[in-house]
Parts: sequence; C-alpha cells; structure tokens
Amino acid sequence: MANQNYKQILSFVLLISLLLTDKVLSVQKPLDLKKPCKSFVLYHHNIAYDTDNAANATSSTVVNPLGLGSFDFGKIVIFDNPVTTDQNYLSTPVARAQGFFFYNKKSNYNTWVACTLVFNSTQHKGTFTILDANPMTQPTRDLAIIGGTGDFLMTRGVATFSSDLIQGQKYFRLKMIIKLYECYN
Amino acid sequence: MANQNYKQILSFVLLISLLLTDKVLSVQKPLDLKKPCKSFVLYHHNIAYDTDNAANATSSTVVNPLGLGSFDFGKIVIFDNPVTTDQNYLSTPVARAQGFFFYNKKSNYNTWVACTLVFNSTQHKGTFTILDANPMTQPTRDLAIIGGTGDFLMTRGVATFSSDLIQGQKYFRLKMIIKLYECYN
Amino acid sequence: MANQNYKQILSFVLLISLLLTDKVLSVQKPLDLKKPCKSFVLYHHNIAYDTDNAANATSSTVVNPLGLGSFDFGKIVIFDNPVTTDQNYLSTPVARAQGFFFYNKKSNYNTWVACTLVFNSTQHKGTFTILDANPMTQPTRDLAIIGGTGDFLMTRGVATFSSDLIQGQKYFRLKMIIKLYECYN
Repeated sequence: MANQNYKQILSFVLLISLLLTDKVLSVQKPLDLKKPCKSFVLYHHNIAYDTDNAANATSSTVVNPLGLGSFDFGKIVIFDNPVTTDQNYLSTPVARAQGFFFYNKKSNYNTWVACTLVFNSTQHKGTFTILDANPMTQPTRDLAIIGGTGDFLMTRGVATFSSDLIQGQKYFRLKMIIKLYECYN
Repeated sequence: MANQNYKQILSFVLLISLLLTDKVLSVQKPLDLKKPCKSFVLYHHNIAYDTDNAANATSSTVVNPLGLGSFDFGKIVIFDNPVTTDQNYLSTPVARAQGFFFYNKKSNYNTWVACTLVFNSTQHKGTFTILDANPMTQPTRDLAIIGGTGDFLMTRGVATFSSDLIQGQKYFRLKMIIKLYECYN
Repeated sequence: MANQNYKQILSFVLLISLLLTDKVLSVQKPLDLKKPCKSFVLYHHNIAYDTDNAANATSSTVVNPLGLGSFDFGKIVIFDNPVTTDQNYLSTPVARAQGFFFYNKKSNYNTWVACTLVFNSTQHKGTFTILDANPMTQPTRDLAIIGGTGDFLMTRGVATFSSDLIQGQKYFRLKMIIKLYECYN
C-alpha cells in the first residue's frame, strides 16, 4: 500500500510538473481552422462623404492623397459605417464599424485598416477590432482580429474580407466572414 | 501490481490526451472577471495645445474637423499625456500615455483611440496598449487591452474609461480602471 | 483494490478540477524568454518621399509637424517599406512593412508605430502586426506583436527595434529582432 501511494504521488507530481512545464515555455498549438468558437457573416457598408450628402454619408476622407503614384497613396479615411447581416445597407444594422483606413501603395490600390465592430443590441453587446493590411485587389484577404470587450471579451481570430460591391468613389460593400478562435464569454 | 500500473498508465495517457485535445481545438474558456492577474486605477491628463501653451500642452489636434455634422467628425489628436495615480495632473507621472484618437460620429461626440501606456519607473518598466472605440457620452466604457512588453509582456485585458473632468477644449481627465487577465510576467 | 481505485479516481478528479480551475481564472504564466516558438532577424528600409524621388520612395509624410516643440510633434508618415534579411535595401524583399508612424513628443524624437509585416513568398505567407510606442533615442526598444494571419495566425510576441542606419530625413534602416511566443501554425 505504501508503495502504491508512493507511485500515485509520483504520477501526480509528474503530471503537475508537466502542466507547469507547459506554462513556462512558449505556446505552440496547431489550431483546427474548421472549428471556430464563434462564426458569422457580416456586410460592411461605406458611404463616402462628397460634401453634398452629409445626411447619408458614413465615412469621410480626412487627409488627401499627395500625388505619390496614381493609387491614392496617403489618403486617410475615417468611418462610422453600418454593419448588417444582409447586403442591403438600409437593413437594421447589427453593429457599427468604427475606425480608419489609408492607402499606402504606389503600384496598386492597397489599404491598411483598423476597424472596431461595436455591437449594442439585445443579441450582442461589446466590441472587437480587426487590424491588418488589406490588399484590396485580391479577391479575398485575411485580416487579424486582435481583441475585444463585452460579449467578445479578449477574443481573437480572423476576418476574411471580400469586396462585394464597389460603386466608384461613392459606395463600397465589404463582405466579412468572421471566425473567432479564442472566446472567453 | 501489474494491473495497478496498467491502470495508472491508462489514467496518465487519458489525462495527456485530454490536454492535447484541448490544444488543437479553439479556446473557449469562461473568465472570472473578478479575478484579474493585475489591476490598478490610473488618471490620464490631456492638456490640448492652443498655440499659446506650448510649455504645458501634452496633446495637439493634427487634422481638423471637416464639417460633417457638428461633433468634430474627422478631427485627429496626437498625445503624449502624463498618467498619475491620483487626480492631480501635477503629481509625479507613473507612466506616459502615447498615441492618438479621432472623432468619428455625426450624431454625437464619439472617438476611436489607440493609447500605449509607457512605464519607466523603479516600480514598472514596459508598455501596454489600449485600442478600441471610445463612446465618450456613456458614463463608463470598456476598451480592449491588446498586448504589451516588459513587465506587461503580451498582457491582455480591459480598461474601463470614465470622463473624470472635462474643461471645454482645454483639458480632460480620464479615469482608467485597468484589469489584466493574461499576465506572463 | 476498491480502495486503490477510489484513490485513483480521486486523484483523477483532483487533476481535472485543477485543470478546470486554471481555465476559469485569469492566466498567469511566466514565459521563458529564451525559447520563442519562432525567431528571426529582419531589416526594414524606409526611403522618404521628397517630391523628386517618386520612383524610389517607399514612405511619405502625409501630415506635417505643427510647430509644437522642435521634434516633429504631429508629423504622420505612411509607408510600404521593403523588408530584407540583410542590410542591403536592394536585396530581394522577404516581406513588405505596411503601416504608419507619427512623432508625438515635445522633448525628443519619439514615435508611435503600427507596422504590419506582409509576407508573400514561397517561404512564408501571412501577416503579423507590431504596434507600440517607439522611443527612437534608446539604442534598443521592445515593441509588442499583437496578432497575425496565415503562417502567423494569431501569433504574439516581441519585436526588438534598433536604428541600424539613419541618413538625415532621406533614409533609415531598422533592425528588427522578431521573437514569437504564441504560434498556432
């Protein structure tokens, strides 16, 4: 019996030290990308201010392009855009997308974006932020989700953007496939 | 005895596989919000530059509002603000708050903020960054803490902001309740 | 024997509850900084636009300093810079560094930076983002890596910057020692 207890204690200590070892080293885990803890599809609508449409506009250029190349390098846009679950920008928004983006390439249209989704409905309360390069000329691109609050407390994951519709400088609609792989709420 | 060992090994293998299973799937953990690993209260002081107060100013508008609505849409402010543990902006700072914010709503005062707290004292060395929408008209609002360095290496958590004092365009004081839920240092 | 089994079950339950307890509380783990899951050294080249060098320029001032102090407070720069594994800016880039920085101190040169490394080669596909205060006058400074996509999915860690070469306002080269402590790919 004493021997048995000794073995059990040893096994227990081994496991604990294994757990502790796991903690002091870096984290190296493969993620099953097909199994997000939360997942949904959203549409993001951007109606650009053109000095005549103050009532409808949801975004505006605040710094103009400076003439380096022909792809708006240096143009900064600030937005408070409606986010819906379908393609109609007049549908009741489920969130606002708040943040900014700017153009930063000489050779083609490319933006860098910081976009916080602000949810304030009966279904969801809280925020999460997408922040990454956004190479608009690619049909789809992955952007990092870096953190959040409320229902999305400390969440992380990936937003896959595709340009669903572009109407010149006036309007664009982004499809955003959201996949969260860390959920604490 | 052989049977006992067999059972112990089985139990050990079961536990290890449980640990490994946990790793390949997404993370879905409820967090006990009452038990942060670090927690403190700070005051953030913003003294706006008005062209006459260069000696005292700690922040400045760098892009002016463009006239979309009446709530400063498009105004960008860059800051290097003192952070103290009490409400007196003349107290010895425990950190600097460095970053920018901008106004982004037509219908009321609303900002989006990226704010890095830079600690360089005997008590704390390192940084962490708060980045989120900041709906100023709400009495309190939660903003995400997305990462850090030094004493705050890779930390994450929540900063609860409340406007402690607003003196027109000249000065505001933010109370920031910091709660960190991931600490690696 | 029944007694033995009982003890084993107890030990098992104890361990499981220990694991579960670990999950509902905040994470508090010391990290072994010498053992990143990925690590590499990169050079980041910034060629400033001076209105005459559009062919070579990779970055540009988009908002000018406003005259608060003598250290460019308020100047905003947007960039799409080549990143190489050696010091030669003409070497084949392994990534582009996309983002912006601004000067934010009255008393010395200090910047705040958001910089996404965009990899698109046979070796690496994906992005990760460095975002932090960058006190340029210090010989080395640690900046937080807050997230990523693709090969760098949800990665986090530290980038240690040092100014490798500064040629007035025209060119600077940053050495970036990248250490990732969370790797999911």
